[in-house]
Amino acid sequence: MSKLTIALDIMGGDHGPPVILPAAVKAIQLHPDVHFTLCGDEDTIKAGTQPLTDSERNRVTIVHCSQVVEMGEAPTSALRNKKDSSMRRVIELVESGEADACVSAGNTGALLTLSFYLLKTLSGIDRPALINMMPTTGHHNVFLLDLGANVNCTPEILFQYGVMGSVLAQEVAGIESPRVALLNVGEEDIKGNAQVKSADQLFKDAPGINYIGYVEGDDIFTDHADVVVTDGFTGNVALKSSEGLAKLVINEVKRQSQKNFYTRLLAKIAFPLLKSIYNSVNPDQYNGASLIGLRGIVIKSHGNAQKDAFYYAIVQAMKEAKMHLPEKIKTKIETVLLEQL
Amino acid sequence: MSKLTIALDIMGGDHGPPVILPAAVKAIQLHPDVHFTLCGDEDTIKAGTQPLTDSERNRVTIVHCSQVVEMGEAPTSALRNKKDSSMRRVIELVESGEADACVSAGNTGALLTLSFYLLKTLSGIDRPALINMMPTTGHHNVFLLDLGANVNCTPEILFQYGVMGSVLAQEVAGIESPRVALLNVGEEDIKGNAQVKSADQLFKDAPGINYIGYVEGDDIFTDHADVVVTDGFTGNVALKSSEGLAKLVINEVKRQSQKNFYTRLLAKIAFPLLKSIYNSVNPDQYNGASLIGLRGIVIKSHGNAQKDAFYYAIVQAMKEAKMHLPEKIKTKIETVLLEQL
Repeated sequence: MSKLTIALDIMGGDHGPPVILPAAVKAIQLHPDVHFTLCGDEDTIKAGTQPLTDSERNRVTIVHCSQVVEMGEAPTSALRNKKDSSMRRVIELVESGEADACVSAGNTGALLTLSFYLLKTLSGIDRPALINMMPTTGHHNVFLLDLGANVNCTPEILFQYGVMGSVLAQEVAGIESPRVALLNVGEEDIKGNAQVKSADQLFKDAPGINYIGYVEGDDIFTDHADVVVTDGFTGNVALKSSEGLAKLVINEVKRQSQKNFYTRLLAKIAFPLLKSIYNSVNPDQYNGASLIGLRGIVIKSHGNAQKDAFYYAIVQAMKEAKMHLPEKIKTKIETVLLEQL
Repeated sequence: MSKLTIALDIMGGDHGPPVILPAAVKAIQLHPDVHFTLCGDEDTIKAGTQPLTDSERNRVTIVHCSQVVEMGEAPTSALRNKKDSSMRRVIELVESGEADACVSAGNTGALLTLSFYLLKTLSGIDRPALINMMPTTGHHNVFLLDLGANVNCTPEILFQYGVMGSVLAQEVAGIESPRVALLNVGEEDIKGNAQVKSADQLFKDAPGINYIGYVEGDDIFTDHADVVVTDGFTGNVALKSSEGLAKLVINEVKRQSQKNFYTRLLAKIAFPLLKSIYNSVNPDQYNGASLIGLRGIVIKSHGNAQKDAFYYAIVQAMKEAKMHLPEKIKTKIETVLLEQL
């Protein structure tokens, strides 16, 4: 197998290089079989990669970029005015084949627009989607999409999302026949809006997809389905509101623990237990949403990702690159579309 | 102050009378100043209220209903074919003024349709909304609406929801100038769908509403806003997915605690701490969504509510009845609409 190359946007995210560079250094140190292309301000990158040994440095290419896409910048402005931005550069490296995947913690809208414009979608796919794994009470994780790539989705787009999600569950999670469900406000046939009802019919008519019908928001986490499909508005809210609740729990653990001497003592004794509960719901470990449906691999890290969270996003990029995910999606969507003829 | 009367649908919910009646008995015993009208199968109710003393029984009226609205039944079928259902009866009692509020754990769609048909909306309100309080990391709870009354909302309806939510935050939570926010997929002005953007403008133009702009899903729980407004599809998913995550945490606590002797011991020692964390995120204590915007008070309990959860819903009904909530909403919406002229 030839060497993987992962391109990293060093300038993106709420915290920028001070968080991204240490994560990159960690990835470089822990993955000696991978080449990294770091895009951004050259001096900053050089300063931040000083911990690397000479042999580690041999696996790193620095590409100086004079521009940065700002977090609040309009996607169209990023597309028109930021031709030399680190975000654009990492996507161009994937487009040209110089990188197998790229990772950015930058402005989601700009990343979507640039990726869509530069990489184009696979044939049979109208729109890319943001997808990520989430924990469940069962043995499997669940893939939720779309997490915010398209706030308006037609039934056809929702259907394509189901097919793509199915491929990820199969390839990334190793589930033989992934259970695909549509997110709805009830499980009965009469529930939902027109768009969800039409998508339901498309799934019912599709061969080769293990469609199990509607699930509600709480079922995302109950191992009912392996893939949960929804539009980008709802999916983004579902993701962020459950993250918000996870943070509330963590906050509550801290607050209750610090109430008095007795609770501080209890918390100290129960620390290993609290820690493993924290880990199981800590959104950081699920960082690294994949932008799928494109002719290349783009991983979106949380804007506010800390070092370890950004590192997880890099690991996700390597995983997808190793399994040639876009090719797998292309094959599956072609099969499903052909079988429908 | 005259005696309150609360009408309870005894037959509704996933568990029906075996859960609802004990909750009703608890409410009757704990609230000696309130009259209860119990609607449903007379024999079942008589059997289930045997724990009551004679004086408690004096505050109870049993209204026999021969029909039950089924959990999966189409709302139109409930409206046309279930004229003698316990669900319809409790709403009729509110409509006629014989009850000050009603509570049902039955079929949400049917409850909405029957309430809308029998009670009608307040003038200035196009559609009722389901609203509930949720916990935050701050000192206030937050009111989230709509939780599923209308899957399609116009900008005008979203605006009316904001006004109504503002009244609840003021009256129920005692917040002087409630911060009202629109739920969106980003906080920047360019984010969101057309419907959210138009609603944003309506709020910006409205006097008398402390509108603070967009919030994202995770901000629901961070005490950024006192009222978070969204359409019924998104709101339902936000509510249920955060509930799902809360259940995941509870499940994880159990799983991690039972791993081995050591963790069982830790969990035993830390039990008071774990219990208070559990209580802070336990969805049960937030049971009792209000169906607001109607000319009467209707409280929707979770279908799968257990005894204590249904009891909370009854308490919520008493609270709103005491403060004459529909009148307060009517006054506020008239003020806001007048000021806009």
